[in-house]
Amino acid sequence: MNVCPVLIAGAWRASEASGTFHAEDPTTGERLADAYPISRWSDLDQALDAAVAAAEQLRTLGPEPIAAFLERFASRIEGRGAELVAMANRETGYPQKPRLADVELPRTAGQLRQAAQAAREGSWALPTIDTKNGIRSCLAPLGPVCVFGPNNFPLAFNSLAGGDFAAAIAAGNPVIGKANTSHPGTTRLFAEEALAALADTGLPAGTVQLIYRTSHDDGARLVADPRIGATGYTGSRSAGLVLKAAADRAGKPIYLELSSVNPIVVLPGALAERAEKLADEFTASCLMGTGQFCTNPGLVMLLAGEATERFVQMVVERFGKAPAGVLLSSGVARSLAAAVDGLVAAGAERLAGGKPIAGPGYRYENTLLRVSADAFLAQPHALQAEAFGNASLLVVARDAAQVAQVLRSFEGNLTGAIYSDTAGSDDALYTQLEPVLRPLVGRLLNDKMPTGVAVSPAMNHGGPYPATGHPGFTAVGIPAALRRFGALQCYDNVRPARLPRLLADRNPTGKTWRLVDGRWTCEDVG
Amino acid sequence: MNVCPVLIAGAWRASEASGTFHAEDPTTGERLADAYPISRWSDLDQALDAAVAAAEQLRTLGPEPIAAFLERFASRIEGRGAELVAMANRETGYPQKPRLADVELPRTAGQLRQAAQAAREGSWALPTIDTKNGIRSCLAPLGPVCVFGPNNFPLAFNSLAGGDFAAAIAAGNPVIGKANTSHPGTTRLFAEEALAALADTGLPAGTVQLIYRTSHDDGARLVADPRIGATGYTGSRSAGLVLKAAADRAGKPIYLELSSVNPIVVLPGALAERAEKLADEFTASCLMGTGQFCTNPGLVMLLAGEATERFVQMVVERFGKAPAGVLLSSGVARSLAAAVDGLVAAGAERLAGGKPIAGPGYRYENTLLRVSADAFLAQPHALQAEAFGNASLLVVARDAAQVAQVLRSFEGNLTGAIYSDTAGSDDALYTQLEPVLRPLVGRLLNDKMPTGVAVSPAMNHGGPYPATGHPGFTAVGIPAALRRFGALQCYDNVRPARLPRLLADRNPTGKTWRLVDGRWTCEDVG
Repeated sequence: MNVCPVLIAGAWRASEASGTFHAEDPTTGERLADAYPISRWSDLDQALDAAVAAAEQLRTLGPEPIAAFLERFASRIEGRGAELVAMANRETGYPQKPRLADVELPRTAGQLRQAAQAAREGSWALPTIDTKNGIRSCLAPLGPVCVFGPNNFPLAFNSLAGGDFAAAIAAGNPVIGKANTSHPGTTRLFAEEALAALADTGLPAGTVQLIYRTSHDDGARLVADPRIGATGYTGSRSAGLVLKAAADRAGKPIYLELSSVNPIVVLPGALAERAEKLADEFTASCLMGTGQFCTNPGLVMLLAGEATERFVQMVVERFGKAPAGVLLSSGVARSLAAAVDGLVAAGAERLAGGKPIAGPGYRYENTLLRVSADAFLAQPHALQAEAFGNASLLVVARDAAQVAQVLRSFEGNLTGAIYSDTAGSDDALYTQLEPVLRPLVGRLLNDKMPTGVAVSPAMNHGGPYPATGHPGFTAVGIPAALRRFGALQCYDNVRPARLPRLLADRNPTGKTWRLVDGRWTCEDVG
Repeated sequence: MNVCPVLIAGAWRASEASGTFHAEDPTTGERLADAYPISRWSDLDQALDAAVAAAEQLRTLGPEPIAAFLERFASRIEGRGAELVAMANRETGYPQKPRLADVELPRTAGQLRQAAQAAREGSWALPTIDTKNGIRSCLAPLGPVCVFGPNNFPLAFNSLAGGDFAAAIAAGNPVIGKANTSHPGTTRLFAEEALAALADTGLPAGTVQLIYRTSHDDGARLVADPRIGATGYTGSRSAGLVLKAAADRAGKPIYLELSSVNPIVVLPGALAERAEKLADEFTASCLMGTGQFCTNPGLVMLLAGEATERFVQMVVERFGKAPAGVLLSSGVARSLAAAVDGLVAAGAERLAGGKPIAGPGYRYENTLLRVSADAFLAQPHALQAEAFGNASLLVVARDAAQVAQVLRSFEGNLTGAIYSDTAGSDDALYTQLEPVLRPLVGRLLNDKMPTGVAVSPAMNHGGPYPATGHPGFTAVGIPAALRRFGALQCYDNVRPARLPRLLADRNPTGKTWRLVDGRWTCEDVG
């Protein structure tokens, strides 16, 4: 059997593997042909050494070649777009169009280009100059970054092309990508293009490396290794917390994006004003991509009453009529079924769906559950468990005070939304509930479902624990996402000729924003 | 026996204590009269509830009253300055003048005023506006902050008046201060003035609370409590890492400032040019405050040769002539003696001092140790252990390559300095060594000892683990120090009237810096 090689130190090498695995076509459940290695520690050890060497070289090269690499990589991805989209489709079941070709692929290339721009310009590093005290500082690369990408965005969050990758590289760090095991082939194609782009632009070969899978123990050892600067992880909470514990013990930063139910509060005025529209909007957001979004609206809070009963019926009808999409893997199908069963066991009632769909392939009925706020408050922990996939839980409360009570029982979430009417009849309730919801979520929305995550400088794709590992950082949005991978470096009385370009008197690009003596400016100093 | 009460929810209450302790006068070793309680969990539990209530109120009050409180507190501290200085002198042995009255007290008041200014202005929160996507974000208070202050700055880093306190409050959070047990009386005076300043300015009484001491278990429980937003800790590595483990497990941010030896590299040209001056400078920096600075120069690297031997003699003479200062406590005296013994056991030679001085009071001889780089590299871990106090280790290397080897064996440090000559003869060595030292330290200095830590926007009083717990943050410097205590909060499609003032179209102060559509500006939006 041919086993795909791993990419270490610029070369495709046979892995010293402890075993192999295959991806599946989730639409049929069939095993795909390529075998991928499960790396032993020796692979990781070599990758770490190569990454350290690359990190040292990158520090001397500065931002321009890094930006050129990111742009070249974006173009190469576009050049190989059809193949990438076909492979991702085969490995994830996501439709080629519009999802992969028209949404994810352009987003991926766009993110890389935005990251290139940020790297070149340098403002992301918050360069700060105090001329009076002779002190200057900025963020600087903190060393090799491990990226563990999620299953649900094979392109835009891919370990070797997605948001964490782009941010880590743009901040000046090499990346060791651990492929998501549901789409190793897609990740391999990215690695091939990245390697070519490194050669095209003269970057060290160890800047981008790829392993496909390791034992859990070796994964934990990797994120805690002294040679690692930081880790970016997006995936399941249980696996993420194991990595977090290992990284924390070693004092290594780890940025996690874990589970989130993304509560939505629909106030009565909004329901009176536009129930049909809300039912459409919620159904589309909840079932899009078979509900496999980090920001999928997994919990909707409503106030008891006739309008709510009518709205529930509208959603039930829509969930019943919508085709049930394909899930990413047998694992996702299993855990969705278990999560729905868990919610039902905790007191939720099935209004629509709630059962696996017989194969071939991995599908689950579009599922709508309902529970009273009283019942929710009796088991708040069990009833806020994420059901990753095409399922959502409606929580019906007696009154706004009870909505507030339910909100107060929530863990940290990525997002939270409040829908209110346009005439102002909900304003008092909004004012009552917003202060409760606000500190619990990274992104607060009005009248909008959370599934769109714009790559905006103002975006926060983050939130309080356990949605993420630290409430101060975002995984999406440039330049802020780069800051996760920077170490603060200060220069005190350092002679002018020895300062990094970003902190020299002359503005390095003529358009780099720097905080000079308390004033943000693109001007030279002095 | 009268036991001092704790400050909880705006009232001085008798602690539900498990025991009591006393501070000592370190110049005599005598126990001071006041008894302070060791709080049980019930004290902490009540403080946490009061802090949560205060945090909710502070969110609605906005920055102006918070800034007014900080300024009022600064003035009250100055008004009670003589008493504070006398108490701190009694509890720490630091001289009233110049140290306490002329350096620490003005720094404390100045920091509070700078923090007030930053709170009022709001730029610290990095307000970011994307008008095209309708998304806005900024850092916002993340909830009650626990501050564990160190022994070595009874005023400027006091749990209830120092850098972490000022930063946490200015970011909009209440503080629960855990007094350093070596200066409870000083902390009590600060608490009295803080409570009065809260009343003067209408802030919630739970904004500032004080407990003196707890069991280690309760300390760990405190930093991991769901009601806590984050913790700031400055102190010993062993105690800090216990708190870190507890906070990490609970997903709570904790900002630690732990040990650091602050390596200094003296290049041969500098030595040839100004050996006497360097010997003066190093001796003053190393013995200042009896060496009890986080940034004390604990390790000096030199290249073998006659000039170095002469320099070593100069320093030995100076260490011998300088009076040995008082140490902060019996604990500091014990651990300094143990650390010096440990360095000697690992192969260091005593050039000066190296023994405790008989009482009364806690003193240790000014101590200079020496080791070859060969010997250092045989036991790099043992030989880079911090000896907190008036001691330093000279490491003499064969050549620059060996200096680099020693540097590569270092853990993360707060600072590192390189001395070179002014004529340029050291430039090649600088270029060789700087890239090795740079990533290992938070602040790099040229021709300057690290003991001065200016409160500058460009300062980094931080560094890679284990100097601190996260390489991206600083404990000194406003506004950056505030960011540790902020959670990133994003507003997506939120109606204009519902935005926080900091993110509204109108610039909240007319001089708040905001990143609007990629451009830093103080202008209104639109």
